[in-house]
Amino acid sequence: METFAQQADTRHAIDFASLYVPPRIEGEFTGKHILSVEQFSRQDLRILFDASASLKKRSRQHDRGLTEICSGKIMATLFFEASTRTDMSFQAAMRRLGGEVVGASNGVRFSSVYKGENLADTVRAAGCYADVIVLRHPEVASSLEAAWYLDKLEVKIGRRPVLIGGGDGIGEHPSQALLDLFTILDQKGSIDGLQITMVGDLRHGRTVHSLAKLVARLKGKGVTVNCVSPPSLRMPAEVMDQMQEGQIPVVETDDLDEVLGNSEVIYWTRVQEERFAERADYDAIQDGFIMTPELLQRARKDAILMHPLPRKHEMGPPESHDILDEDPRSIYFQQMENGMFVRMALLAKVLRGVYV
Amino acid sequence: METFAQQADTRHAIDFASLYVPPRIEGEFTGKHILSVEQFSRQDLRILFDASASLKKRSRQHDRGLTEICSGKIMATLFFEASTRTDMSFQAAMRRLGGEVVGASNGVRFSSVYKGENLADTVRAAGCYADVIVLRHPEVASSLEAAWYLDKLEVKIGRRPVLIGGGDGIGEHPSQALLDLFTILDQKGSIDGLQITMVGDLRHGRTVHSLAKLVARLKGKGVTVNCVSPPSLRMPAEVMDQMQEGQIPVVETDDLDEVLGNSEVIYWTRVQEERFAERADYDAIQDGFIMTPELLQRARKDAILMHPLPRKHEMGPPESHDILDEDPRSIYFQQMENGMFVRMALLAKVLRGVYV
Amino acid sequence: METFAQQADTRHAIDFASLYVPPRIEGEFTGKHILSVEQFSRQDLRILFDASASLKKRSRQHDRGLTEICSGKIMATLFFEASTRTDMSFQAAMRRLGGEVVGASNGVRFSSVYKGENLADTVRAAGCYADVIVLRHPEVASSLEAAWYLDKLEVKIGRRPVLIGGGDGIGEHPSQALLDLFTILDQKGSIDGLQITMVGDLRHGRTVHSLAKLVARLKGKGVTVNCVSPPSLRMPAEVMDQMQEGQIPVVETDDLDEVLGNSEVIYWTRVQEERFAERADYDAIQDGFIMTPELLQRARKDAILMHPLPRKHEMGPPESHDILDEDPRSIYFQQMENGMFVRMALLAKVLRGVYV
Repeated sequence: METFAQQADTRHAIDFASLYVPPRIEGEFTGKHILSVEQFSRQDLRILFDASASLKKRSRQHDRGLTEICSGKIMATLFFEASTRTDMSFQAAMRRLGGEVVGASNGVRFSSVYKGENLADTVRAAGCYADVIVLRHPEVASSLEAAWYLDKLEVKIGRRPVLIGGGDGIGEHPSQALLDLFTILDQKGSIDGLQITMVGDLRHGRTVHSLAKLVARLKGKGVTVNCVSPPSLRMPAEVMDQMQEGQIPVVETDDLDEVLGNSEVIYWTRVQEERFAERADYDAIQDGFIMTPELLQRARKDAILMHPLPRKHEMGPPESHDILDEDPRSIYFQQMENGMFVRMALLAKVLRGVYV
Repeated sequence: METFAQQADTRHAIDFASLYVPPRIEGEFTGKHILSVEQFSRQDLRILFDASASLKKRSRQHDRGLTEICSGKIMATLFFEASTRTDMSFQAAMRRLGGEVVGASNGVRFSSVYKGENLADTVRAAGCYADVIVLRHPEVASSLEAAWYLDKLEVKIGRRPVLIGGGDGIGEHPSQALLDLFTILDQKGSIDGLQITMVGDLRHGRTVHSLAKLVARLKGKGVTVNCVSPPSLRMPAEVMDQMQEGQIPVVETDDLDEVLGNSEVIYWTRVQEERFAERADYDAIQDGFIMTPELLQRARKDAILMHPLPRKHEMGPPESHDILDEDPRSIYFQQMENGMFVRMALLAKVLRGVYV
Repeated sequence: METFAQQADTRHAIDFASLYVPPRIEGEFTGKHILSVEQFSRQDLRILFDASASLKKRSRQHDRGLTEICSGKIMATLFFEASTRTDMSFQAAMRRLGGEVVGASNGVRFSSVYKGENLADTVRAAGCYADVIVLRHPEVASSLEAAWYLDKLEVKIGRRPVLIGGGDGIGEHPSQALLDLFTILDQKGSIDGLQITMVGDLRHGRTVHSLAKLVARLKGKGVTVNCVSPPSLRMPAEVMDQMQEGQIPVVETDDLDEVLGNSEVIYWTRVQEERFAERADYDAIQDGFIMTPELLQRARKDAILMHPLPRKHEMGPPESHDILDEDPRSIYFQQMENGMFVRMALLAKVLRGVYV
């Protein structure tokens, strides 16, 4: 097919990251976009996690009343990059609440967007049909851009669809962080007094950045965060600052053994090769930051091992996976299931405001 | 993979366009395929739009009774080319009525059809599982072929699934035209006395052809249609003939300013480069048929600006989009949302015959 | 994107085919994976087919009570290769029972699995969100591997999601064989006294292998199975042995005319070119194993012609298809629709145990 026109760059040059500030929750979830962990106060977190725990319990009891909660509501999924886990988890959450899901039958990657339409128009199209939209997009701040345009749509159609960010590049992925923190509370009862150890590439790891910020916001008593990484892959200053503000003592080290024996929570990060500009940094992670059955043996008996999944060689070869999985301290599958319950709580709260 | 056999051409040589005449509605929607705007009489349009308006109102009121209307019914989507808007809109419509949707998990383009199965068998497969099928296909008359084979299926399984065409190449896309006309009525109350101005490539524009035919069928009093296009891209004779039959005065011009000041409805067409055989025709559209904020300033205060979306450079660069969108006369997002309500009405009528 | 690490082979070297024995049904379906026709006793088949017939009847009567059966349950689809028919059929089955379906919006082939995650983790992710998983995968025994890991998941999340195999390479596809046998019973009332003739490539044809095994298990009185194939493409010894054990007389021949006039059931197999290593074998099938209208004329008046679909040139050119389809003995569309009813029965039985 011959193309007469140069394909215009349809991305806006607008800097949405500085333009758009996500609204604080402050006890009122209904109708609010969920874009960042920074929207949540300590009290908001408690409300959300109480709702998550209640929904988990009712799901376990096969409570059919759950399907009343989002009945008549529609969620649209816009996944501009694949993320089976986030995608299926949100779908299952909405459906367990009795809501419905629409998505592009051929996948968004074959849709109009790839024929040159910009995000602003695509997200408003979804907004015309749906009550809530889950967006996954490779570009940082794309969820802010989408929220900005959905706010404008309200003038036209008299209602404002809610956006829930499902990951935008190395930017935010709030529901992942929320499910991580909920899992710690779910497993340990309380965050008070815990030593939480994050291990691996802490420079690029989106999940540990957001989790660290949330831990700071929850203001647990006597919490310590241990940051274990090669020197070149340390936790960014911005995250360290937030933990300092939250008065969380932080230990930085490149030697896991220094803190392993005291850690109640061990959060192992994914190694995402594509994020590394330097081979030396990648090699640094390869050498000594692989979880093994031997390593786990040295952890506390009451520790929990977390991982956001999917996992690769940072958890060793598949044979090691099987041995790690047998250990009752490995709770990453429970963590994954909790993702569904936290997303149920988010959907219930933003769509109906229930479970206050 | 080595292929021993020559891949047979699995397309039928049958000319379904002359073989298959879509049934006229004549007040009875139940069980009828929706393939062409020519199936609808003036009275049928009034029935459908009354139902659309009622469903829109009930949706706005969050009427949970809506989900009873298509409860227990299944819609299959067969999208052989991507069309996120049509796809999501039909899905949302069916789900808001309590019906269910099935589609190929990997997209139809990866399915058996692309392994050599013909449309006739694929559509009958969907018909075995579903009560209504929405088909999008790149070839003209493919929806007629599909309807033909679904009619034959009735002998085998004792029921005839309904087909709704969702666009077949430059052929028909009836629900788009219906939503366009509904939007005019929804915004203006009545079509009587309106000057409706269609602008751009009127030769290839499927949406304006069908809209013009529907306007002719609705037989409003005192309606004028203005056709504004480069001389080489005029409205086809067949469409002009239908408007003449409907006694609609038509003004043809290549100068928008001649009619802009009198137009209550301005319908801006998409420019689909791939439809142009000649570069000169494409350049003709580029020069003077781009909607801009300045141009919209010169329109009547009570005008409405319509566009089928997605939009490209015929609406100017993205920065212009933002300014155009702010104007209350721009109602293309309302138009898009109305698409869902009109499709709800179509589904309710063909599946249940309700809302007569 | 540069890749620092060699992509590890993430497939386990474990031989799941010898490790994992699917549980026998023995009258109790609830919570059992459906992986092989060998799980079903004669009595299990009768239970399942009674349920299928009942669900078919209730569907025909538009019984809205059906949507109570799997209400609140979630099915995940994991299709690692496209199979529109199996996919849509399972989706429609679950939805007609009031259950919900989740799948990867962009198709599994674009998901984490293709970024290097292994099947064991992907299937457990789906298991965290869903109550039942339908798996289609190109590798033999992959459904056994998936079941093995789902069993392990139970320790973690306190429930065991059910796996239903939807085809694994040239391995098992139990629901296809069950729908084939159900169709024979549905059309003929009973299997007793029937001559069942299977025609074509019997060496590679997964569907005929499983059907032959099921016929052996049902132990009908006076049943004969005729195996018609080129000498090089005969039914495998393992299948012949099972028929012998079931005391089913088998006739092997390469001449259809020898048995056509006595056959009440004619099962025509798909020719899957990609399975042939030798061109001579492929040519053998081409010559004399093509179904034609003339051939069907010579069959009994009360015969039924079955085919698993999709069909290619083993049923002749598309023009022949139309003539074959007109013949009331061609019941492959009824067979396809029956697939939905049998899958409804399977889902109802494994999820709720109803219809005993």
